[in-house]
Amino acid sequence: MGDPAGIGPEVIVGAWGDTRIHDQARSLVIGHPEILRRAARLLDYDGEIVEITRPAALDELNSDPKHIPCIKACADDVLEVRPGRVDARGGEAAFQAIQFAATLALEKKVHGIVTAPLSKAALHAAGHHYPGHTELLAEICGVTDFAMMLYLPPGEAVRSPSGLGVVHVTLHQSLRSVFDDLTSEAIVAKCRLAADAMRQLRAAAEPRLAVCALNPHAGEDGLFGDEERDIIAPAVEQARRTGLTVSGPYPTDTLMLRARDGEFDAVIAMYHDQGHIALKLLGMHAAVNITLGLPIVRTSVAHGTAFDRAWQGSARPDGMVVAIQTAAKLIHRRM
Amino acid sequence: MGDPAGIGPEVIVGAWGDTRIHDQARSLVIGHPEILRRAARLLDYDGEIVEITRPAALDELNSDPKHIPCIKACADDVLEVRPGRVDARGGEAAFQAIQFAATLALEKKVHGIVTAPLSKAALHAAGHHYPGHTELLAEICGVTDFAMMLYLPPGEAVRSPSGLGVVHVTLHQSLRSVFDDLTSEAIVAKCRLAADAMRQLRAAAEPRLAVCALNPHAGEDGLFGDEERDIIAPAVEQARRTGLTVSGPYPTDTLMLRARDGEFDAVIAMYHDQGHIALKLLGMHAAVNITLGLPIVRTSVAHGTAFDRAWQGSARPDGMVVAIQTAAKLIHRRM
Repeated sequence: MGDPAGIGPEVIVGAWGDTRIHDQARSLVIGHPEILRRAARLLDYDGEIVEITRPAALDELNSDPKHIPCIKACADDVLEVRPGRVDARGGEAAFQAIQFAATLALEKKVHGIVTAPLSKAALHAAGHHYPGHTELLAEICGVTDFAMMLYLPPGEAVRSPSGLGVVHVTLHQSLRSVFDDLTSEAIVAKCRLAADAMRQLRAAAEPRLAVCALNPHAGEDGLFGDEERDIIAPAVEQARRTGLTVSGPYPTDTLMLRARDGEFDAVIAMYHDQGHIALKLLGMHAAVNITLGLPIVRTSVAHGTAFDRAWQGSARPDGMVVAIQTAAKLIHRRM
Repeated sequence: MGDPAGIGPEVIVGAWGDTRIHDQARSLVIGHPEILRRAARLLDYDGEIVEITRPAALDELNSDPKHIPCIKACADDVLEVRPGRVDARGGEAAFQAIQFAATLALEKKVHGIVTAPLSKAALHAAGHHYPGHTELLAEICGVTDFAMMLYLPPGEAVRSPSGLGVVHVTLHQSLRSVFDDLTSEAIVAKCRLAADAMRQLRAAAEPRLAVCALNPHAGEDGLFGDEERDIIAPAVEQARRTGLTVSGPYPTDTLMLRARDGEFDAVIAMYHDQGHIALKLLGMHAAVNITLGLPIVRTSVAHGTAFDRAWQGSARPDGMVVAIQTAAKLIHRRM
């Protein structure tokens, strides 16, 4: 459910009325049923929130636009959290919901999880010090080789029939610290994760990966930096030798255009903003955040809590719909 | 004319047939008439290349779709340069043309200059060591306080009625070296240049400037870097005290969306790719490169030489048309 002060509850209720999300999956919400009821009233939702208490009920779970099954995974004090406010109780509730959902998935009681946005400030206020959702889930699952992929399904925004994935080699860290963590090994590992994910999302063909340069003009033959020559080009070569279809490093400004126009299925970005600026411009509302390298399927909306617009009934549920559809697709491919 | 091996000559001839560029300006080409004639034949251009030799002819200059006046500013050995090849003779020709054009402008014999793309490799092969067009022109004009702005005129891509300008605080340099050059003073200086340029492009209203963060999530309160707190936020405050309408630093991935949607007239980017990824995705073919801080008006196409597609007759002249129109607009406002 994400942070109760943000737009998470709204986009969940908004998405639930979309029949497409029920076609391929049976879903339930982990959060607090009363918060969902408030969102339902706000949106004049024409259905009901059904609290689930018995674990066995998961097996009998059905999913339709008129019923939102919900497991209460947090304390009742979240009911006092005010819309749009950073509140430790909201951060704690989001944390509990993630932990509950991830545990269900690890125990194979659900096939995958989809997350609504949380507030990092609220998470920290509640004493949970993670740079983001992705890192928290990696810790719960006990993995160190993971990556965040922003994914745009095929459609107007991108021309590749497999959509476009952007995988980040470094993520929630200062730009200055990127230089310490940018290694050939890390780049090769992210290429492998990207290829695996795009195979699952597309089925047949061999994904075409393109690797971003770090410096402007891909370093302009060493004039604007040497990471392309010393780190990135060797990584591309190594990844190619393992059988991946991968090329680069390319100047990132024009690479993003080429990827949009269908020349590549996935792009490996060296740092957070490099990938995020492009993907959000291409399709903020259609983008899905997928965590690669976890033993469980996990997708998320690509937007944040939007505290400034929360609980006004104006949040678009498109991202949540696509996140649920994409999780379902990944689950079906893995099965 | 730019590098004769690139798409410069094609886009010039292609643009000349567009009546819009003759409505507000009288133009001539500085380069080599024979290269232009080859481009004219390639494109079945229905007009003629008229070589101008007497300086006095500039006063009588007329501009129409059927006549391309051209001053020969380089040696005849450029005629041996092969399409799509890095060649010192091509680099030298591009260099001579820029120097010639800039000198005409400095001597007020022309009101402004528009440049076609050059090849940095060819420029270097010819012994001219500049990171780019922008820095070369700054040196010719003897200025140190200058900046590159990528500009998208108002239209489909961006919603602000003044279009969208992206000004770069640092430009053609390694990402690692950005940390040495990112100072509050530099940011304030670029804010001032951006505001001046947007006033010239829009006339009336006070331009609304937004400053990018350097780190993901604008540093997430110091968790992902401290440049926002120590350098960028103080610069925004300083710039505001000088009377500019400026805010930030904002997380860059969502800022670019807000700017596209019309919330700001100009964005101040901290480094090359931050601005270039966004502007090129928003409108590669409509974007204009404007050099701010020069005593002369100078615009350029935002694309490169495209050696891989040069002299095939397939290059789009849209960027050149917009670059000429924008130069004319800036000239009229300055007069």
